[in-house]
Amino acid sequence: MTTSIGTRSLEERIDEMESRAAIADIIAGYCEGTDRRDLDRFMGIWHDDAEYLIPGGRGDFHGTEEIRRSQEVIGKVWKETYHWTTNHTAHFESPDRATGRSDAFAVCVHPDGRVSWVSCTYHDVYERRSGVWKLARRLVERYFVSAPQDVELLPPF
Amino acid sequence: MTTSIGTRSLEERIDEMESRAAIADIIAGYCEGTDRRDLDRFMGIWHDDAEYLIPGGRGDFHGTEEIRRSQEVIGKVWKETYHWTTNHTAHFESPDRATGRSDAFAVCVHPDGRVSWVSCTYHDVYERRSGVWKLARRLVERYFVSAPQDVELLPPF
Amino acid sequence: MTTSIGTRSLEERIDEMESRAAIADIIAGYCEGTDRRDLDRFMGIWHDDAEYLIPGGRGDFHGTEEIRRSQEVIGKVWKETYHWTTNHTAHFESPDRATGRSDAFAVCVHPDGRVSWVSCTYHDVYERRSGVWKLARRLVERYFVSAPQDVELLPPF
Repeated sequence: MTTSIGTRSLEERIDEMESRAAIADIIAGYCEGTDRRDLDRFMGIWHDDAEYLIPGGRGDFHGTEEIRRSQEVIGKVWKETYHWTTNHTAHFESPDRATGRSDAFAVCVHPDGRVSWVSCTYHDVYERRSGVWKLARRLVERYFVSAPQDVELLPPF
Repeated sequence: MTTSIGTRSLEERIDEMESRAAIADIIAGYCEGTDRRDLDRFMGIWHDDAEYLIPGGRGDFHGTEEIRRSQEVIGKVWKETYHWTTNHTAHFESPDRATGRSDAFAVCVHPDGRVSWVSCTYHDVYERRSGVWKLARRLVERYFVSAPQDVELLPPF
Repeated sequence: MTTSIGTRSLEERIDEMESRAAIADIIAGYCEGTDRRDLDRFMGIWHDDAEYLIPGGRGDFHGTEEIRRSQEVIGKVWKETYHWTTNHTAHFESPDRATGRSDAFAVCVHPDGRVSWVSCTYHDVYERRSGVWKLARRLVERYFVSAPQDVELLPPF
């Protein structure tokens, strides 16, 4: 993963570790932003010219305006979503650019209240611009959306 | 996330990275402690005066004695639990105090053997005291506990 | 977790942080390798003499050849698998050896298309040899494999 440790300063190595933490925060922010319908949190993880690509019928979204609109599209498809992202890896092409991969499991509620299980992989490009790490690109590879099930998601008791 | 990098020493920056690892261990220890019914592991993640708050009917637990008792309460509600915690973020207010957020998915087994799916967010405060990071506060925001389902959780084959 | 911070150099402490990132990549690679049936990715996480132990009927696999064969065994049992690994902890016994623990949730598809939910813990030993971190040992403690359910995992829409 780190092929040139010997030639890098401690400062550079710490910077990469901090970048990993910042990128992990992006991964989490995607779920928090979408699931909690927190548009500020969601929009805060994307660069202005980012690409958000969801093959398989959901659409491709380019740039701030379209990415903001993606949340309206998803809000119509799902009444509620719950995403859990795991298996994250990041590989640095330079101190300011990394590619990453993570797997998510989600429970999504249809407008009629029925529930689907969803599995997907996020294929990401992260870039640091003006000192801030954000997504430059996210491609969502979805594996399945289960047939809707009649399982009531009750409030806690 | 780290607004004052320029003014911090390498030592301070490494310390924060190590603190992140210690906090991740707490997050995992909560699941391991509860799910494996390992009371020592569970109690080891809380400060003596910690608050463990579970709105929605489960109760609020203050301090070591009550937090220990929480495990008896939960042990009566659920025959078995399996928690998977993801989407963790932590923000440092000082070198010795951070707030955090994570999302968990859980499969919980009722005393009659039926199964519920659970979704929640943990809202945390971590503090380092005498050199050891522990939870000062955890608020569990539960979103749903699914209606019990008749799905047998068989031993591996 | 780090009992001798005072006596360790910044270099040693950064090395451990980088080792944590390398180990997290192994954890993710196991899921990616198995789920995507990417044998190169899967085999790349194991040392030549690693032990891969799955009590409960699946088998024990010792060394490269047997571990490669494990993927054929698992490929016959499951038509598809989706693993999400969480709750990871790692404790360093030395700069080049650590033990770890993580919990996985999985959705696995039987050859007939029915679906089981799986829960397990991975008990790991990681070793760095010739500068590369890999698994020296993984013991899979499986808690349940749910009775097969008739839930269609449809392609995305």
